[in-house]
Amino acid sequence: RYFHFCKLPGRVKGIRLLRFTSVVIIVLLLVAGALTALLPSIKDDKMPNLRREPKTQSQSALDAFTLIMQTYNRTDLLLKLLNHYQAIPHLHKVIVVWNNIGEKIPEEMWNSLGPHPVPVVFKVQTVNRMRNRLQNFPELETKAVLMMDDDTLVSAHDLTFAFSVWQQFPEQIVGFVPRKHISTPSGVYSYGSFELQSPGFGNGDQYSMVLIGAAFFHSGYLEDFQRQSEAVYALIDETQNCDDIAMNFLVAKHTGKPSGVFVKPVDIRNLEKDTNSGYSGMWHRAEHLLQRSYCVNKLVNIYDGMPLKYSNIMISQFGFPNYANHKNKM
Amino acid sequence: RYFHFCKLPGRVKGIRLLRFTSVVIIVLLLVAGALTALLPSIKDDKMPNLRREPKTQSQSALDAFTLIMQTYNRTDLLLKLLNHYQAIPHLHKVIVVWNNIGEKIPEEMWNSLGPHPVPVVFKVQTVNRMRNRLQNFPELETKAVLMMDDDTLVSAHDLTFAFSVWQQFPEQIVGFVPRKHISTPSGVYSYGSFELQSPGFGNGDQYSMVLIGAAFFHSGYLEDFQRQSEAVYALIDETQNCDDIAMNFLVAKHTGKPSGVFVKPVDIRNLEKDTNSGYSGMWHRAEHLLQRSYCVNKLVNIYDGMPLKYSNIMISQFGFPNYANHKNKM
Repeated sequence: RYFHFCKLPGRVKGIRLLRFTSVVIIVLLLVAGALTALLPSIKDDKMPNLRREPKTQSQSALDAFTLIMQTYNRTDLLLKLLNHYQAIPHLHKVIVVWNNIGEKIPEEMWNSLGPHPVPVVFKVQTVNRMRNRLQNFPELETKAVLMMDDDTLVSAHDLTFAFSVWQQFPEQIVGFVPRKHISTPSGVYSYGSFELQSPGFGNGDQYSMVLIGAAFFHSGYLEDFQRQSEAVYALIDETQNCDDIAMNFLVAKHTGKPSGVFVKPVDIRNLEKDTNSGYSGMWHRAEHLLQRSYCVNKLVNIYDGMPLKYSNIMISQFGFPNYANHKNKM
Repeated sequence: RYFHFCKLPGRVKGIRLLRFTSVVIIVLLLVAGALTALLPSIKDDKMPNLRREPKTQSQSALDAFTLIMQTYNRTDLLLKLLNHYQAIPHLHKVIVVWNNIGEKIPEEMWNSLGPHPVPVVFKVQTVNRMRNRLQNFPELETKAVLMMDDDTLVSAHDLTFAFSVWQQFPEQIVGFVPRKHISTPSGVYSYGSFELQSPGFGNGDQYSMVLIGAAFFHSGYLEDFQRQSEAVYALIDETQNCDDIAMNFLVAKHTGKPSGVFVKPVDIRNLEKDTNSGYSGMWHRAEHLLQRSYCVNKLVNIYDGMPLKYSNIMISQFGFPNYANHKNKM
């Protein structure tokens, strides 16, 4: 209809019609392409893990996780733990962050006692810093990271279950040690655990952080940590503390949800007393807890607000260790 | 450039160019409209509750739920339960589905013993049918529905917590009674509970359904149930059973996730023995369990596949009833 006014022989009209049609089709394709390009980007917001999947990722790496363990002054414990974690299902690789500056890594001894099912990479550091473990290590091939302190042992069952939970909550920190902040009337925040009760919160309790010393989280967050402000790094280095609080701020800000999902551990143990070094962890320092409240308030200034959100959810494995775990009076 | 071959006076060429441009623009707008129309529908899949929010919804109705209780032959228990549920926080309204055909509703007595904090609406039915409770009642003003059997009592704490869990999983059935299907080597499915062990599933257990006799779910699913195939209604009416299995199929199909989230109840009780009618529930019939396996297999045929997915997650309230609920050996 658009051409009836163009007086021309049918042939030419035909050609023009043809060209016109092809123009419209090309335009359609372009617009369609442009607009459908929006869909993935929306999907990304919901599933950061898709966006972040490393190119190099092998098929096996998709259903697996990497254990990152930072160690300082506890090589005997480290080897004990490395032996334990070798047997964990879905473990793809172990990255040991070696904070014993100038000290030789036990790689030779480790290899001499091989073979080991899971490769262990020792990352020698030049400075003994708390946040060394939060690097975006090139050896990291999995979406899932399991970060463990070098004095903590969690049972294979707990880890296997928690990994399956993380796969359902890949945006959040899924771990075994919940903590919370409390806002006081003065507007200053306190950091603590069950001993702090949320004002006006009746039955039950809440948490607003899950510590990364025994937790699964998305490797993409290590990438994000590299883009934190200098003020955040300065705070962590000044205190040699609070890197885990900073990660909870980062995740809460990214998701708009509670940063963590608490999985109730069936068997988690602190092996600190078993070390021959007699070294006892940073958290024994008198100032440890005070530092952590200090960090929460500093981070609120840096973030210009409090991104942490409360959760009251505790997850356990259905039917484990026995059916009693969900028996009721019915 | 497309028109240089069309020998015509400039004016006409101008007009044609004008018309051509407008055609392209119109086409662009149409395509843009059509394609951007996709975006909300994708959003809908993720958040059905947004799409389904009733227009009439009052502000209070946003953070509240409606209790739907179907009753048959247990008016004494019904009144006892109505009294109990009156005190539940966030309860907006109670809808009693009156399956005592031809029997007078106890509205007078109920009102004579008022005032009551929460309105109770009696919906008189003309046929005693299991699926009467799955109507999209016009009195329903909340997104959240709590459906309870008329012989089951759940504590206020359990309900308040489960409602907060549902608000975090609004697409799923959040309830207190998990069940599962097992696929046998013959390809025939069995229905059951903890007594059925998933083949090759080592530690712990799984569930693939959460029964709606004690559960929260989205009112939008009552709307969806009205669009189920006749075969589904026929199956439910023929067996006077399985409406809850059908709802789990519907939700699993809609979300692509496990249909239910199991909340471990602290206090749930069956009051059946307390009724003077001596009436005992349908589930005592010898054929009850057989019927339910039969229904699972029938629904798989109707759905041309098995939409149910397994979950191993059990949710409890953090720090309730006491801190021991998350103490560990650490």
